[in-house]
Parts: sequence; C-alpha cells; structure tokens
Amino acid sequence: MAGGRPRPPRGFRDFPPEVMILRKRLLSRLERVFESYGFDPLDTPAVEYWETLSGKYGEEAEARLIWRFQDPWSGRWYALRYDLTVPLARFVASNPGLQMPFKRYHIGKVWRHEEPQKGRYREFVQCDADIVGSPHPEADAEVVSLVVDSMEALGFNGFRVRVNDRRLLAGIFEEELSLENPLPIYRAIDKLDKIGEEGVRRELEKLGLAGSTVARIMEIISWRGRPGEVLESAGRVYGSNRRVREALDHLEEMLSLARDSRVELDLSLVRGLDYYTGPILEVVLDEPRIGSVAGGGRYDGLIGMFAGRDIPATGVSIGIERIIDAGLELGVYSLDVKTVAQVAVVVLDRSYYSYAWEAARLLRKGGFNVRIDLSRASGQVQRRKASRLGIPVVAFVGGKEAEGGFLTLYSAATGERVMVPLIEAAKAVERLLPR
Amino acid sequence: MAGGRPRPPRGFRDFPPEVMILRKRLLSRLERVFESYGFDPLDTPAVEYWETLSGKYGEEAEARLIWRFQDPWSGRWYALRYDLTVPLARFVASNPGLQMPFKRYHIGKVWRHEEPQKGRYREFVQCDADIVGSPHPEADAEVVSLVVDSMEALGFNGFRVRVNDRRLLAGIFEEELSLENPLPIYRAIDKLDKIGEEGVRRELEKLGLAGSTVARIMEIISWRGRPGEVLESAGRVYGSNRRVREALDHLEEMLSLARDSRVELDLSLVRGLDYYTGPILEVVLDEPRIGSVAGGGRYDGLIGMFAGRDIPATGVSIGIERIIDAGLELGVYSLDVKTVAQVAVVVLDRSYYSYAWEAARLLRKGGFNVRIDLSRASGQVQRRKASRLGIPVVAFVGGKEAEGGFLTLYSAATGERVMVPLIEAAKAVERLLPR
Repeated sequence: MAGGRPRPPRGFRDFPPEVMILRKRLLSRLERVFESYGFDPLDTPAVEYWETLSGKYGEEAEARLIWRFQDPWSGRWYALRYDLTVPLARFVASNPGLQMPFKRYHIGKVWRHEEPQKGRYREFVQCDADIVGSPHPEADAEVVSLVVDSMEALGFNGFRVRVNDRRLLAGIFEEELSLENPLPIYRAIDKLDKIGEEGVRRELEKLGLAGSTVARIMEIISWRGRPGEVLESAGRVYGSNRRVREALDHLEEMLSLARDSRVELDLSLVRGLDYYTGPILEVVLDEPRIGSVAGGGRYDGLIGMFAGRDIPATGVSIGIERIIDAGLELGVYSLDVKTVAQVAVVVLDRSYYSYAWEAARLLRKGGFNVRIDLSRASGQVQRRKASRLGIPVVAFVGGKEAEGGFLTLYSAATGERVMVPLIEAAKAVERLLPR
Repeated sequence: MAGGRPRPPRGFRDFPPEVMILRKRLLSRLERVFESYGFDPLDTPAVEYWETLSGKYGEEAEARLIWRFQDPWSGRWYALRYDLTVPLARFVASNPGLQMPFKRYHIGKVWRHEEPQKGRYREFVQCDADIVGSPHPEADAEVVSLVVDSMEALGFNGFRVRVNDRRLLAGIFEEELSLENPLPIYRAIDKLDKIGEEGVRRELEKLGLAGSTVARIMEIISWRGRPGEVLESAGRVYGSNRRVREALDHLEEMLSLARDSRVELDLSLVRGLDYYTGPILEVVLDEPRIGSVAGGGRYDGLIGMFAGRDIPATGVSIGIERIIDAGLELGVYSLDVKTVAQVAVVVLDRSYYSYAWEAARLLRKGGFNVRIDLSRASGQVQRRKASRLGIPVVAFVGGKEAEGGFLTLYSAATGERVMVPLIEAAKAVERLLPR
C-alpha cells in the first residue's frame, strides 16, 4: 500500500458523514411517500447473470456500460445490476405467486461502467417505485402523483414533470411520416436540451430527411405545455391514427387523475432506454439546469421477455445524488448536521466516569442520541469536539454532579446552562434541544 | 430466456415482500439503537480494488471467498466487498480529516464466493457499528452495550455475549506454553461448538502436542462464565505474563462498564478473522443453535495497513438474515404483515373513480398508507385482494358515498362497518386501525 493515500476505485466516491446524514434523511422521506401509496419495500441481488441484463437497455449499455465480469473460478459471466427495473422484471418472472398489481419500491445501488474522467460515477443510488400488473392509465397516474409528492417531500417546488408517450411519436413518425427507422431521429430529438432547436434541425437535416419532413418534426416536438392544449393539437392533426389515438386517450385519462400545474405534455421527450412502450416521464428542475432528476414510464413488454407472457408495468426512478447536488446548490439543503448525536456527555473528572456512563444510558433510554467521551481527553478538548460536530446539548459530569446525583446541561444554541437532578435530565434535554 | 422460469444467480436469493417488510422494520430498530449511541450513518462503495481487500482476512478468504473479478475493459482487478470493516479502514485512511473518535454505522451488502450447494449465500447484509480512534476499554464497552441493546431491540432475550481477548490466548500459548505457531491450535479450538470437547482434544493430539500441553489447553478453554470469576482464574495462573495482564486489565475495565448478566468471558472464543488484536466478542442465541448472530472485536492494526500509522478501532457486525431465520423459528417474528398498506380503497362503481382517487389522496395526507384499485376489478375481487394482503381497513366508494361526500369504512379485525363524511375519514381510520 505504498504510494500515498489509498483511494476508492476510480469512478467511485466516498461521501463524508454529513452528506450521508442528509442522504439518509431524504431517503426516509422518499420511503414515507412510497409507502403512503402502499408500495412495499423490496430488494433484489446486486449481481445478476449477464444474460439477464443483456438485450434490454440498448446498444451503448450493451457494449460498454453494463459492468459485466467473468467469475474467475467458474468462467460464468455475471453483471452488476444496471438499473432496478430489469431485476424487478426478472424477480416478477421468477416469483409467479405474487399478487397483482404488485407494487414495490426499491432503494438501491446500481453500477455503470462509465469513463471516470467524464465526471460520471460508476456507482449510484436509484429510488424506484413500480406497479406491475395494471395496463390502465390510473397506474401511470399514480406514478405521476407519486413523483410530484416525492419532489415536494424532498423540498422542491420549482420543477416540471414532462410527460410523453412512446406510441405518439411512433404513430406519427412511422405511420404518418413513413419514416422507416425513427431511432436516429429520436436520438437527435433527445439532444434538444443540450444543443437547442437549431442544433436538432441541423442533426435532422444531416440524416438526409426532406425539408418538409424536418419542418414537420420540428413542429411536432414544439408541442409542449398544458396537457389539455397539447392533446388537442395532436388530436386535431393526427387523431385518426390508431396508435396516436390510443396514446392520446391513455394520456388524457391519466392526466385527468394526476392533475398538477407542474405536469406538462412535451412531445420532444424521448428518453434513452429501449424498454418503454407507453407513457414516459421525467422530472426537470427549473434551477439548476442539470438534466433530469427522475425518469420513468411504462414497459409492458419487458417482464414478458422473462416470464414468457406479457405483464404490464409502469414506474419511476429518482436519482438521489443529483437531487442532493441540486438541493445543496439551491440552498434547499445544508450540510450543517454533522452527527445524529444530540447530547455530548463531557467527563470533567475521570474518577466519575461510571456515573457519566450511567447518565448517558439514562438519556438514551429517554430517546436521545448520546455520545460520551471515549478518548480520555480533557474537558476542554471534549467540549471543542462536541462543538465542531455541532452537538446541540452538552452534559457535564464532574464531582459536584456525580456526588449529588446531578447533570449540568448546556445549550449550544442559547448558551443556557442548568444543573438538574439526573432523573429530570431527559425532560431538561428535551427543552434545550432546538425545535 | 428459454428453459423454464428465470432465477437469481445460484447462491443468491429473492426474498418475498413479507420478509423484506420484516427486514426493513428490524433494520430500522437497529438504526435507532446505533444512533442512540451517536453512531452516524455511512456507506462506502460496494466495489474496491482487489489489493484493498487482499491480505486482510486470512487464507481461505484470500484464496477462494473474496469475490474478485477482472474488469473486461481495463484488465484491472476489483473485488466485491467481503465485509464492511476493511472498507471502513480504507475510508478512514482515505479521509484523514475525520474527527476522532469517528463513530459510524453501516448497513450494507457484502459478497462471498461461497459454494452455493453448502446452503450458504453469496450476498448478505451486515449491520456494523465501529468506533475508530479510541484504544480504551470504554470504547469496547460501548460496543458490548450496543450489541446487548441491539439484541433486545430485535426482540431477543435468550442470548449470550461471549467475550475473549486475542492477547490472552496469545500470551498463554506463545509465552507460557512456548507454542511457536498457535494458528492450528486456534483452528482446532474454533471447532468446539461443532465437534465438542472430545473432538477438540483429538484434533490437538493430532497436532503432535504433548499430553500435558493438550490437558493445559483443554483446561484454559474450559474457563468460561461470569467475567469476575474467569478473570480471577486466569489472573491467578498467568497474571504475571505481560500480554495476559494487559488483556485482563482491559477486559476488567471494559466489563465493569458493560455490565449485563448475559455477558460472559469465554477463553475458547477464537473467531476466524485475521485482523483482531484485542477483545473479541460474539453473540449466540440460547435457541436455536445456529452459530453466532453477531461478532466483532478490536482491530488496532488494520487501519494502519492503509494509513501508514496505527489507528485503533473496535466494532461489531450483526447478521440480519440469521437473526430473521432464528426469530421466525422462535416465533419472535411473524410474516403476517404482507404489505405496508393500511387502507384499501375499493371502487364499487367505476364512474366514481375520481372521487375514490381524491379520498385516497386525502387519507394519504392524513398520514396513512393507502392502496386504490388499479385493475378495474369487481368490488368482490378488490375486497378479496385486500383481505389476502391483510390490509386492516377497507374503504368503499359507490354511488351513495360519492354523491353524499362519504366513505364507508370496514375493519377487517372487528368486522365493524361505518359510513363517515370524507372530512372525518382520517379520524375514523385512526380508530379502526389495530393498535
């Protein structure tokens, strides 16, 4: 281990305790929202057979991003899970006794073999909620409501939920514009946020499309805004197309339930994954402009690839790391809380250590998070450490306290100092803790 | 995907939702205990460089159990983390700004390349709490107290915390009995639970030890029970040995703080990992006899292997899967709770779906976990599904309810049925939910 400080592998990160405390608090809020809709917790193995993940995500993932590896003993190919959706599909197929609709949430790590230098990470946490077994718009509506509630619970107000339907563009492009392979067009449209309208137009022209077709595509992807208006425009022009009609009806029913001023229909929304078959959605923040912080949609064919029969499903995935980055930038979050400890027991005289120990136990039984000196440091050093960690209440134990059965409590916020009998200490701490 | 139902990889498991719900509830209780001692949440990457894990755990892990793999693109060797302790040591060394003592808990997956046919699993969850930076017995005492509180919080009463100290056996074996390589002896002793005293004696004889030495070892490892008595016996015979004296003093101070009738000193406790240097502990249940459910100890040299200077540390790891298996076997836990949902909204007439939707929203805002029909099933089927999931309250929406602004609530436990105005529904649900 020579050669300087050891590091996590390239492309991986260590998070400092204050980020982990924030993350845990936010994940608890998400769990609370997920459970309020009756989603149950689930986890699946982090490792799957390579062939379970293969052929589900598209070319780039297949060739480069799914982190596959060969078991050095058996020679078998495995892969670290790339998202939580394909493992869910495999899980549903493996467990045919599940009652439908099956609603689960899953907060877990996924791995992608990104090039580290791009500032992308090889390991991150996804927070997914999915509904398996319902083909109906109310299931998609529940996903939209869930994501709106989630964003609010995470402390955000300035966001939009962009919604589209894979069948809309497919119906228009394939059947109305007779475009045989719309995939390169999707890819061009997908860059809209990055390269702007002019950029997309140039990309489309480079594909050799007729000027009138390019103009048509540019018009279609400009349809975005209030669901009612966009549905109306699309219906007026392409409503006789079967796939378009199906999508419009589905979206209308879905958005009549999931009403929120921040939900908008956006025909330029494409999303990268191969497996979507119906409504798709993503959440973007008004500020900062960092791409989507959540995304999802309906994937009615994916489970069938494992189960042998189609089982409809829809869901959403929230990216907690991006949310944290954005929330910190916006000042919605802070990293002020550096420990969960609420009380630091400072031992002024080591001969009374066991009294201090019992006092700490008592406060823990009272429901508080309590640290006690473990370093045999001076009282001054102990105080300084408590202060650096931002622990709100300090409990002093010296001879006076130990011999009389007292505890001296100090509030870091107000400077108040009070000596109370040990049996009243919990009540006093409660009062001294900031609301 | 031909050839029958898809499976998780061999050696991996899918857990059904009811097990996940139980697991999550138990992990919350553990987090609560960990935080009550002021341990802060942490996570580290699941993937480390192979050389980070190599040389830390002992021969078997090194040769076979650490799941290493070669990145197919770069050729670099990585490994899935084998426990949470070595990654913690790497983390501490990588982040020299941490304030000491650094107390963190970490609930996360670890991977071991077990042979699947042995009924062992390749992925499981460890729940660790560690104190970094204190060499003192009070840190070890905190770990013992923490593990006792944890076991109680998990619902167990019939357990023992077996404690020993690596320096005790080392001092006695190496210095008093002049045994040059005590490792094979440790390995024999480690089998005591499996093969019994006679078995250990035979193993020791096979090592070619003199009869008197074997008798001596058998006597030493029979010293177990109340800490005071065992300390006394060991001190009387070997107390003049420096290492033994150090261990005895440390244990005495540690166990005078962490007093509990279930803590016992046991000189036959060895534990498998290479990195322990001082007190070691494990938790065994009285019933069922399934080996240890938690284990830990002091590892003052491990962080130094990364940091270049010794940093003392001590901690414990609790195995939640074994705890769950044992708790289910003992009847301490049940798998009766099949969903977190508390209310099932049953839609008797689809024309009132949006009323039912709003009722569900209202109950969610009231703090309840609410499912609503997403399958367009008949009222009867919806009820049957709610009942199979054991959802305690059913809320019916038909014409009568929707037109009058009511909700009919039904308690599965008592059979009580009541129609209430929507604005009073939350209060009524509260009353109908089982305590």
